Amino acid sequence: MPTVDIHTHMYPPTLLSLLRTRSHVPYVRTFPDQVEAGERLVILPAEEASTGTSRGRPMGPEYHDIKQKIAFMDLHAIDVSVLSLANPWLDWLAKEEGVEVARGVNDDVEGMCKAYRGRLYHFGTLPLSADVGVIVGEVRRLRGLRFCRGVVMGTSGLGEGLDDSRLDGIWRAIEEAEMVVFLHPHYGLPGDVYGPRAGDYGHVLALAMGFPMETTIAVTRMLLSGVFDRFSKLNVLLAHSGGTLPFLAGRIESCIAHDAHMKKAGALENRRDVWDVLKKNIYLDAVIYSDVGVKAAIDASGADRLMFGTDHPFFPPLEGEGQEWLSVTSNNNAVRAAMGSDVQGVKDIMGGNAVRILHLDS
Amino acid sequence: MPTVDIHTHMYPPTLLSLLRTRSHVPYVRTFPDQVEAGERLVILPAEEASTGTSRGRPMGPEYHDIKQKIAFMDLHAIDVSVLSLANPWLDWLAKEEGVEVARGVNDDVEGMCKAYRGRLYHFGTLPLSADVGVIVGEVRRLRGLRFCRGVVMGTSGLGEGLDDSRLDGIWRAIEEAEMVVFLHPHYGLPGDVYGPRAGDYGHVLALAMGFPMETTIAVTRMLLSGVFDRFSKLNVLLAHSGGTLPFLAGRIESCIAHDAHMKKAGALENRRDVWDVLKKNIYLDAVIYSDVGVKAAIDASGADRLMFGTDHPFFPPLEGEGQEWLSVTSNNNAVRAAMGSDVQGVKDIMGGNAVRILHLDS
Repeated sequence: MPTVDIHTHMYPPTLLSLLRTRSHVPYVRTFPDQVEAGERLVILPAEEASTGTSRGRPMGPEYHDIKQKIAFMDLHAIDVSVLSLANPWLDWLAKEEGVEVARGVNDDVEGMCKAYRGRLYHFGTLPLSADVGVIVGEVRRLRGLRFCRGVVMGTSGLGEGLDDSRLDGIWRAIEEAEMVVFLHPHYGLPGDVYGPRAGDYGHVLALAMGFPMETTIAVTRMLLSGVFDRFSKLNVLLAHSGGTLPFLAGRIESCIAHDAHMKKAGALENRRDVWDVLKKNIYLDAVIYSDVGVKAAIDASGADRLMFGTDHPFFPPLEGEGQEWLSVTSNNNAVRAAMGSDVQGVKDIMGGNAVRILHLDS
Repeated sequence: MPTVDIHTHMYPPTLLSLLRTRSHVPYVRTFPDQVEAGERLVILPAEEASTGTSRGRPMGPEYHDIKQKIAFMDLHAIDVSVLSLANPWLDWLAKEEGVEVARGVNDDVEGMCKAYRGRLYHFGTLPLSADVGVIVGEVRRLRGLRFCRGVVMGTSGLGEGLDDSRLDGIWRAIEEAEMVVFLHPHYGLPGDVYGPRAGDYGHVLALAMGFPMETTIAVTRMLLSGVFDRFSKLNVLLAHSGGTLPFLAGRIESCIAHDAHMKKAGALENRRDVWDVLKKNIYLDAVIYSDVGVKAAIDASGADRLMFGTDHPFFPPLEGEGQEWLSVTSNNNAVRAAMGSDVQGVKDIMGGNAVRILHLDS
């Protein structure tokens, strides 16, 4: 049974060239006053505001060079990776350039998968700034690509979130194509929720809290707006084990059941509850860094719906630390600790589920 | 073994009188244009902004009449309740009125506990708008009250959050008094994080997401600022099973371990990690409405650190629904489902742990 990494990002060369021409986030630049810091990747408005070498992050070859991805996979005994474009994907493109860039990026990544046949698959990227018809067209085109198994998507949708009914045509096309939506956070929470001392804690609060909460809000908005009622076969893979969805699912249902406004609006009748959706529409990655989290994810969604991931190339080892990535070993250990003596269960989460769900054997 | 509810709120008469005199949140008022809606409790700025009967919530006697609390307890076979003032506590008081109001409120609640001896205990409220010395004085006075077992606190602290070093004197006094801090959310997240259609979902997103995230951020800020390193015997009871802390603990530790800024600042050395704090300083209520959540809370903190709660009088049955509160039965069922055949474990969470931890037998 292969080990499969379904949460692993890159900025393929086509996109990187574009990022190097830009002067607003997201962009890649070597700052004249800090040439020694090398190329920096700046993807968030908050990063742009800061000064010094804290502007963005170092942009090494692991972000764009497929050879580095393969070397990382070899080092950690990962047999297969399902690549996805890193955030913020193509959310920021102007309407008219969207489709061309998306096609270029998707074909670029498809080419990598072809070059490393059997080791790489991918989730494509949609030109969400384009018209819905154009986006649907790209979904159908992706369906025809040999190594594409779904689409990666942020929480912004067409700019108003994933509970926007204008997305229905896109959900329908994805459902018909039997592709998976890999839902991933990018925007986090407004910086002031972390208080006046947040800077003392580096990126900890924004990454540890903002990302998972963004994902949880996004998928709950899909639930509340009836997306899973209308598209009962839509499959959504949630990053970071669902953000906080497995833990908060009970509270979400309780809040719905107690909401006078929703009851009055008739929204409580004939709705699928979060548990039903968790078990039939949601897949979760196992990027949660603890056996407590892995167990809760399994309890909520099922051991047959959890899939190992690394989040590479993010969370690299700190300077002076070993070659092997702590972020990888801690997720690997979490799966093993959660499953105990269930060796087959470990194999399923580490790769078997991904092979079955994403048809990686065909 | 008694059934104990450690998460149950009220606005005691002393405070209610004050709320009725106010015209800014929090306040209690009968709106002249909607006399038929009766007294409304308005505790959030966002509620104040809305119009019609959605201004605040109905303020029935269950919010302030201790007889209603006892009737609720009898209906649900709850033997003992540990009362706490409902949010936003006394965060909003002017500096000069803080201590007098706090004493009045605390003595009021202490009197109720005396009147129903053996059935009621309480967490006191601190005048956090006062000087630290005055606040510490109230901690020490509360220590001397017969039925007081701790203090309830929001996430605001002295106005800058719970990672504010000015709180150290207060943490020290609470630690020395061997009292428990019941940490409870109120402020939630900025409304715009829920998107343009949040109003369609009533209060669901703010209650289900904002509250737990606020708690998680607050306790993580305490962790990151070293509160639990400096006060290794400080005991904090987290509302709603820790918000999302049990599920996110692994991610928090991973983000800390990978943070170059914190490493450079030397903040990664000699620190207690979140798991150690969860098992030695944190207690969790069992107000999470699912066995998935209860199990994760137990996995993170220990079955001997979880205590049943109801959140009464919030989450009342909707109109036309039964007398028994769904919010109570779902938490009750969640504990039983999580513990399976472990009858003693159920008894411990339903009351035994609270008796031991809060010394309710003395």
